[in-house]
Amino acid sequence: MQRTQEMTSVQPDWETFHALPESEKIPFFSRDGRMYDCLFAQQLNRNLLEHLFKVADRLRDVTQQKAGADHVSSLLSDKRAMLYFAQPSTRTFMSFLNACHIMGLKTSEIRDTSTSSEVKGETPEDTVRTFSSYVDMIIMRHPAPGFVEKTAWLMNRTGRPVPVLNGGSGKDQHPTQALLDVYTLYRSFNGDLDNKRIVMVGDLKRGRTVRSLSYLMRNYKNPSLVYVSPKEFRMEADILEFLRRNNIKHEETEDFRGALSGADAVYMTRIQDEHDKNGESKGVDYSPFYFKKEHLGLIKKSCVIMHPLPRRHEIEVAVDDDPRAMYWRQERNGMWARAALISYVFGVDERI
Amino acid sequence: MQRTQEMTSVQPDWETFHALPESEKIPFFSRDGRMYDCLFAQQLNRNLLEHLFKVADRLRDVTQQKAGADHVSSLLSDKRAMLYFAQPSTRTFMSFLNACHIMGLKTSEIRDTSTSSEVKGETPEDTVRTFSSYVDMIIMRHPAPGFVEKTAWLMNRTGRPVPVLNGGSGKDQHPTQALLDVYTLYRSFNGDLDNKRIVMVGDLKRGRTVRSLSYLMRNYKNPSLVYVSPKEFRMEADILEFLRRNNIKHEETEDFRGALSGADAVYMTRIQDEHDKNGESKGVDYSPFYFKKEHLGLIKKSCVIMHPLPRRHEIEVAVDDDPRAMYWRQERNGMWARAALISYVFGVDERI
Amino acid sequence: MQRTQEMTSVQPDWETFHALPESEKIPFFSRDGRMYDCLFAQQLNRNLLEHLFKVADRLRDVTQQKAGADHVSSLLSDKRAMLYFAQPSTRTFMSFLNACHIMGLKTSEIRDTSTSSEVKGETPEDTVRTFSSYVDMIIMRHPAPGFVEKTAWLMNRTGRPVPVLNGGSGKDQHPTQALLDVYTLYRSFNGDLDNKRIVMVGDLKRGRTVRSLSYLMRNYKNPSLVYVSPKEFRMEADILEFLRRNNIKHEETEDFRGALSGADAVYMTRIQDEHDKNGESKGVDYSPFYFKKEHLGLIKKSCVIMHPLPRRHEIEVAVDDDPRAMYWRQERNGMWARAALISYVFGVDERI
Repeated sequence: MQRTQEMTSVQPDWETFHALPESEKIPFFSRDGRMYDCLFAQQLNRNLLEHLFKVADRLRDVTQQKAGADHVSSLLSDKRAMLYFAQPSTRTFMSFLNACHIMGLKTSEIRDTSTSSEVKGETPEDTVRTFSSYVDMIIMRHPAPGFVEKTAWLMNRTGRPVPVLNGGSGKDQHPTQALLDVYTLYRSFNGDLDNKRIVMVGDLKRGRTVRSLSYLMRNYKNPSLVYVSPKEFRMEADILEFLRRNNIKHEETEDFRGALSGADAVYMTRIQDEHDKNGESKGVDYSPFYFKKEHLGLIKKSCVIMHPLPRRHEIEVAVDDDPRAMYWRQERNGMWARAALISYVFGVDERI
Repeated sequence: MQRTQEMTSVQPDWETFHALPESEKIPFFSRDGRMYDCLFAQQLNRNLLEHLFKVADRLRDVTQQKAGADHVSSLLSDKRAMLYFAQPSTRTFMSFLNACHIMGLKTSEIRDTSTSSEVKGETPEDTVRTFSSYVDMIIMRHPAPGFVEKTAWLMNRTGRPVPVLNGGSGKDQHPTQALLDVYTLYRSFNGDLDNKRIVMVGDLKRGRTVRSLSYLMRNYKNPSLVYVSPKEFRMEADILEFLRRNNIKHEETEDFRGALSGADAVYMTRIQDEHDKNGESKGVDYSPFYFKKEHLGLIKKSCVIMHPLPRRHEIEVAVDDDPRAMYWRQERNGMWARAALISYVFGVDERI
Repeated sequence: MQRTQEMTSVQPDWETFHALPESEKIPFFSRDGRMYDCLFAQQLNRNLLEHLFKVADRLRDVTQQKAGADHVSSLLSDKRAMLYFAQPSTRTFMSFLNACHIMGLKTSEIRDTSTSSEVKGETPEDTVRTFSSYVDMIIMRHPAPGFVEKTAWLMNRTGRPVPVLNGGSGKDQHPTQALLDVYTLYRSFNGDLDNKRIVMVGDLKRGRTVRSLSYLMRNYKNPSLVYVSPKEFRMEADILEFLRRNNIKHEETEDFRGALSGADAVYMTRIQDEHDKNGESKGVDYSPFYFKKEHLGLIKKSCVIMHPLPRRHEIEVAVDDDPRAMYWRQERNGMWARAALISYVFGVDERI
């Protein structure tokens, strides 16, 4: 997994590199034609997605039996991962941690940066490099946009790089959430993701998951995207422009009920008021965008209801019992998809 | 370990269920005639207690040798446990954590709920269900009375339940503390717990451990219970009523010295001033209820001194060196009893 | 590993014991001629140091292959360690934690004493004894000088001692930092540590690492120590006195540039302003003691640049790319040296 000296020596400085379009950065985060660091959703093309889904399916299957689980957890028993979560996220943290445990990695945790040496005036770059010296992989969540990518970029320039997986970086990227969302669609539709009508509901302006999902649907044939939101939280222009450029059918509406009937999937999201600057969420009536028990009669028998969780009131608890409620399984899918990703990055995916 | 659909579908709502007497709830938390969730001391009958004690004894014995320890930690190597401690308790936490490690489970920890997604407005029920999706067992401590039981109740109604072990729930239940207390008596008396005189000392009104221990002594023949406390902290009426109903000999006294001579066990407890409402502990002179070095001459050679720990001044440090001081071993017994419980819940107890 | 009853029964009380010179305490912390607790740098004589370095080298070598790593992590698979860090130190914590994982120990963590039962009024001695009951080793960092040694002293007097490794105790002792520093010199000089000129730079008055390193150089032939510091932070008199007594060449200077040319190693340290009593660090110009890129031309080709990290501005980031910059490798050396130490304490060092 060594990069050639040439490759690293010609790299531009960080600011210049960071400003490149994602597609141009992909090779830098690859080794031997394989993704090495997982940083942004654009790295997940259709081939890779479907490969990871098959690995994840196989992992679930094999680990049903103890002998299979023990085999899987022997594959990376010599590896150690560091989960560096500078931003609270128990859900993503636990999902990754248990994915590591499934694969047999030993784990170290940074969940509270106040106990870190950062208090002694060390730069974040030095801190990360320090932690990387003890482990074989870093799984990182950080509130500063671009910080996770910068970590991977820095690591790749040292003599001892380790792969970096992005567990959520600022508002910009959370590729494994996108991975698990598409994996959930894949399982719900028996592997056939073409010609699907995906209805995304809620705070589309500030929701990271709906943005990534929109990008990834480009990988499939003839998708149709419906954006349902209060007018204050409409999908951002860059995504709409991306869809137009790629000839992906899409529409925007405030009519939640009306959007339900043709949906293959309804992707609910909560209001992201932690990103409020002046309490702008308070003036918005979000309740017309809640999925209630009464709406179950409006969706197709094959339609699935998704949510990245945590939820507040966007989905009534009574909906949980409906077989089309997929969000709890979606959460569990995340653990398996992440385990598949880890196995892939270390190159043991074919041995499962 | 699947419950039949019938069984769950006829369950009443939570409030109705929770109000049932413990004895009626036991079947709901069982599978195939075996305890599935461990929630309250009433689930621990004499047969189960003695079975768990034998398993614990065997665990200690087998793990003395490395080959035995490796065998034991292979039995549940495919399982993952979540320790969800919403209330600080390093002692119980560490005891359970190391019990898991003895049995070979991989562990995830929630010890600080402020880092949890709860901050995003999720209900506690959703939070717990989320965590359960990644693991095979939940070990939980929670300050809200009934919360642990509710978690188990909720889990049992989902399509993917996992066993729940109660690591302390409000003031009401802490069944594994009761388990380790009786296990300590069992080891101290070579397995014969009949005809024992147990002297319990201290804040009996608010001490959870002395309540559970009183209940569990019903499992044995002809026990005799002596409650020694300042008058402000006498044992509660419900326990006294329980003892009368079950014809269990008992007496109350303020005379600590006088109670010592006939004791088979002296169970010391500390003042529970964290439960004070108006600083009522401050007005009480607790010092007549301290076990001092001078008291060692007053107890039988075979008498054991116990304490659930942590202690303040209830037992003088100089007492620690006496062979009858059992509290440090009692603490270690807790780890083994919990390991035995975990092995039992997963059905590998016979393979140790 | 049992101490004889005689040995413990004749021990003096803690105050008397603690006041003994380190050399007289060494036997108390040994078993069968082998260090049992690792508490102060004086325990690390030349023979032991070189043995541990060879073990560390072998560990690195053997674990390159998965089969070797799996073998190593099987050696102590029946052991459990507790990392009790009452003082934040993510670096030392992570280094020890991953050293445990390399050796296959299961680990429990106390990193935030506010979640501990200490809040219930327990003494620190009881708390530590509690934790020790669940594990086979304690790795401890504590802000109170002497506390780690006292813990080991107490443990040795109980019926169930476990080895204690000092991960930093107040300002006084941090023996594994000294261990890794000398190990780094050992690797840098191909095992030959005689006749070396070591230049130590910075806040020598309050830096623990430069004190320990000075002590340990006594183990080697004809060392020459150069202390470079602002006059406010000169090396303490006790060390200078120690060097005189042992006929170790040394000099003090404020001329950083001048000291560089003859150096075999330049050991940089940061200003320890967390030990300021009245902001005395603020009045000191530390910048003449920074290692900048321009200084690379002044040192020998074979000279190594070290730093215990974290750094602030003592070493310019541009220096990192120079092959003589050893501090990142030094950090990683710490993990291997600690793994070697753990293997030694448990007596499996010969089986690696």
